[in-house]
Amino acid sequence: MSPNPLIDDRFIDFLLYDVLDVAALCKLPAFTEHSRETFDPWLTACRRLARDVLFPQYRAMDLAPVRFEGGSVTVHPKMHALWKELRELGVIAANRPTEVGGQQLPMTVFCLSTAYLMAANLSAYGFAGLTTGAAHLIETFGSQALKDGWLGKMYSGEWTGTMALTEPQAGSSLADVKARAQPTAEGHHLISGAKIFISGGAQDLTENIVHLVLARLEGAPAGTRGISLFAVPQHRPEGGKLVPNDVHVTGLIHKIGWRGLPSVALAFGEENDCHGFLVGPANQGLKCMFQMMNEARIMIGANATATASVAFQESLAYANDRKQGRALGSDATTDPVRLIAHADVRRMLLRQKAIVEGSLCLIATAARCSDVVEHGTDPAEKDRHRLLLDLLTPIAKSFPAEKGFEANTLALQIHGGYGYTSEYLPEAWLRDQKLNSIHEGTTGIQSLDLVGRKIVAGGGAALLVLKEEVTVDLIKAEAAGLDVAAMRDALDRLVSLTAALGARGASGDLDGMLGHSTDFLELTSILVVGWMWARMGAAAGKRTDDFAEGIRAAAKYWFATEVPRIPALATLCESAERSFLDVKPAWLGHG
Amino acid sequence: MSPNPLIDDRFIDFLLYDVLDVAALCKLPAFTEHSRETFDPWLTACRRLARDVLFPQYRAMDLAPVRFEGGSVTVHPKMHALWKELRELGVIAANRPTEVGGQQLPMTVFCLSTAYLMAANLSAYGFAGLTTGAAHLIETFGSQALKDGWLGKMYSGEWTGTMALTEPQAGSSLADVKARAQPTAEGHHLISGAKIFISGGAQDLTENIVHLVLARLEGAPAGTRGISLFAVPQHRPEGGKLVPNDVHVTGLIHKIGWRGLPSVALAFGEENDCHGFLVGPANQGLKCMFQMMNEARIMIGANATATASVAFQESLAYANDRKQGRALGSDATTDPVRLIAHADVRRMLLRQKAIVEGSLCLIATAARCSDVVEHGTDPAEKDRHRLLLDLLTPIAKSFPAEKGFEANTLALQIHGGYGYTSEYLPEAWLRDQKLNSIHEGTTGIQSLDLVGRKIVAGGGAALLVLKEEVTVDLIKAEAAGLDVAAMRDALDRLVSLTAALGARGASGDLDGMLGHSTDFLELTSILVVGWMWARMGAAAGKRTDDFAEGIRAAAKYWFATEVPRIPALATLCESAERSFLDVKPAWLGHG
Repeated sequence: MSPNPLIDDRFIDFLLYDVLDVAALCKLPAFTEHSRETFDPWLTACRRLARDVLFPQYRAMDLAPVRFEGGSVTVHPKMHALWKELRELGVIAANRPTEVGGQQLPMTVFCLSTAYLMAANLSAYGFAGLTTGAAHLIETFGSQALKDGWLGKMYSGEWTGTMALTEPQAGSSLADVKARAQPTAEGHHLISGAKIFISGGAQDLTENIVHLVLARLEGAPAGTRGISLFAVPQHRPEGGKLVPNDVHVTGLIHKIGWRGLPSVALAFGEENDCHGFLVGPANQGLKCMFQMMNEARIMIGANATATASVAFQESLAYANDRKQGRALGSDATTDPVRLIAHADVRRMLLRQKAIVEGSLCLIATAARCSDVVEHGTDPAEKDRHRLLLDLLTPIAKSFPAEKGFEANTLALQIHGGYGYTSEYLPEAWLRDQKLNSIHEGTTGIQSLDLVGRKIVAGGGAALLVLKEEVTVDLIKAEAAGLDVAAMRDALDRLVSLTAALGARGASGDLDGMLGHSTDFLELTSILVVGWMWARMGAAAGKRTDDFAEGIRAAAKYWFATEVPRIPALATLCESAERSFLDVKPAWLGHG
Repeated sequence: MSPNPLIDDRFIDFLLYDVLDVAALCKLPAFTEHSRETFDPWLTACRRLARDVLFPQYRAMDLAPVRFEGGSVTVHPKMHALWKELRELGVIAANRPTEVGGQQLPMTVFCLSTAYLMAANLSAYGFAGLTTGAAHLIETFGSQALKDGWLGKMYSGEWTGTMALTEPQAGSSLADVKARAQPTAEGHHLISGAKIFISGGAQDLTENIVHLVLARLEGAPAGTRGISLFAVPQHRPEGGKLVPNDVHVTGLIHKIGWRGLPSVALAFGEENDCHGFLVGPANQGLKCMFQMMNEARIMIGANATATASVAFQESLAYANDRKQGRALGSDATTDPVRLIAHADVRRMLLRQKAIVEGSLCLIATAARCSDVVEHGTDPAEKDRHRLLLDLLTPIAKSFPAEKGFEANTLALQIHGGYGYTSEYLPEAWLRDQKLNSIHEGTTGIQSLDLVGRKIVAGGGAALLVLKEEVTVDLIKAEAAGLDVAAMRDALDRLVSLTAALGARGASGDLDGMLGHSTDFLELTSILVVGWMWARMGAAAGKRTDDFAEGIRAAAKYWFATEVPRIPALATLCESAERSFLDVKPAWLGHG
């Protein structure tokens, strides 16, 4: 079998140059230095690092997870060399401006290129991705002193960064953050409190780590409006050297996946000597965080997509290699056929392709929106893209996580009994994948965000933008020969359903609006991914080469098997169905 | 939190006495010694063993899997005490006649009582369940000498048994079994060949293991018609003692779940000294096996159901205990609420309940059919139940495996970030569950069995029996106040769809008949589980106690969210949709 490509290069090129037209994006002033001539070498470097350096260490890092002994966290020995290579690639700041040491790559290109690194080794890239996110917060909201002192070290990978939001008692409920920050005369704050599930929160890779910590100032209002953001280093620069900053690891989380990336519980300020530096205005911490949230959520979608892609490629190679069973109706004297000759195996492969490539197109589309939002020159276009990006974000975060998990399950299933063993890789990717429906807002939270905020944003303006965009691409897909009738009906249905739910919300019937939000998220995701397949089908045109036939087959599969689920889901969302809304705990058995 | 009950006792009592009317079953001559007075103490003993003995060792056995060193397999040290207790309970032969040392329990009761043992510790019970299956083959088809010499030792648990079918090159394709059997003048055969994935194929629990091995006699026809069944002991009785029988462990499979039950690769006859004893007629081995297959497949369904049940109970307790977040519309100054107060958490719980209890009712219904098939006195009733049992078997095997996996995923999801750690149990059950869609015939194989054989059996007679049974229960459910209109339509649709597919098959259009068999299996499973909920809803009547309200809520949930998916699935199965049928390997990227 040939080595796992992680992601199909030809598909990525098709997305960038045929579907998403990054050439047009390069006309924006921010990207005039870029073109296919700069993107291709960058993509090549990412692919090489992913395939030749990161992927070969994936299994070893899964089998020998990070350790916590004597108060210190030790990463896998191979991780040191991987970190060096990631730094040398310059990936941490690749999407940031040249002024801060970056390459100013469009997010569209950054997102698809880093997907290779994720597919190769989620944990290894995780250190870099988290550092990008934390540094970006400082770049946007930090004081000049923080920017001058720390940003370069973070973007170069001399230091790493984390997001320290979650607390043990609060989980997803950030309103209940209890960590405290006390102002001092010297300008810094004294931070105290406990955080949990902090990815990359401790390591022996770099001399320092900067934690972006949510905490409350004394007297701050309750809830989310009383939360501030602080940069809290593991070691603080003092008198020309780094001294310990009273941040201690109190436990290592034994995760079932991402086992090369430490997730730790941290105690800040146990000795009342933990210095934190305010980032952004007081009590506006969550708002600052949320300005980065789209990016973080699309990153999770990319993690999920990458994890599904590498497993898809593995199962495709296995199905092409392994001989087992016979064609329907053949007798036992004939030779066994390859697994891919069985219709149900092809179904499992095409379903994975539809999910994986639909997700890749979705995250790249969201990333392209963010490029226009951040760097566009036409205010109307920026607004339009902002509405669309906000609407797409909960879908781009949750669809690849949920359906990617299904795709990963199919990859394991294709491997049969062998797939159920740790001698084969699909089980490891299945474990990795599960996190993506939990962190950065569970799927349930994404569904409330979509129904309660995003789909009704701008008094219907967001939905109108979506409708216009989809309509244009359906016309193109139809011209390319695809049957998009079910998509058209589904789009109309989404509009009428949203109006009905919005009216319920306006009348104060929150249960009626939000009760079936998970079903609504599923419905909208099927439609949006159908839109992606329409775009891709249109871009493939009427070509009859193998690649175009594959695109068309996946589009047809999605339109024929998933889109027809939409009417029943819409009926359910709009119905007065209250089975679980009305359930009392005692009905379930624990009174 | 109170200890995990594994399965809800009240629900099991409801199933046995209110839904399935085991009192009526006890009127059959085979069961006249039985009544609620004998069943209840048995259930109590199983529940006690499950909760007090097996479950407390579950995690330890998962964390320290079986080992293979120096050619020997060592089970977890605690397993020895568990095996002693399982033997003392008499569970291995509990469903077998008193003449062979059993208690002649109806399968209905056996199936639901052993589900507790499975829920507590799949691996521990696995040794017993496999021994029951292997001994049952000898009881039915074995020579008098085998029955006299070995059966008692197996049914008492002095020896264990295995099924040794799969070979490394053949996987699910039993037609390609290559192991060989050479007759000798002494009456035994010399067995040679390699087997893989043999659960319980080696252990240090008992002095001997009897493997039921599929192998070919010299000159036997190719394919499934040339396979014979042999009893092959690990040690053979010779001169009053046990001597090694040339059966060697060549490898331990590193499974991702069921980690207390060894799965091994075995080499038979490497020294040409492996004695096997023919079980059943020559070349009829697969036929003999298939006579047990219904039982084995329902057992897998029970494994899957039990694994989903224990996780459902765990997540229910967690959701009742853990406080996090607030009700929609409440402000941050109010106290956090329990997880179960969130609508989407209740959705995840009610969905688990619908899957778990629907599956329990399904496997018990199938078991009850098998009781009538085996012990009924009215030939017409026996025929009717045989048709129904055959039709239900692929569903009872695959629905709990596939939807149980989804239920296990929801149990993990409810635990949030904690669920992603190995400090909590849901991740272990999720790993355990995955096997059930693979062993004893993958879901793909079950779907071909359903569409190609079972649903069209008897020229439509099987489907007619199903239709009559469902219709009667829908009338009762309606009388209890449930809206069953969608179920009625779905039932009619299944009949017309089956006729259409059957006609395609008759005309030689195998792709047209079988291409969407996985969708057909899903459709039929939703309907059959809907039937279960109609039966249970009818049995709950119009009572308004918490238990009955819970039954009704789950029935309503299933009718409102799953049954409406049937029309689109039926349209798909009947359509000419060929997206994956037409896919060429090169279209997917590996030309």
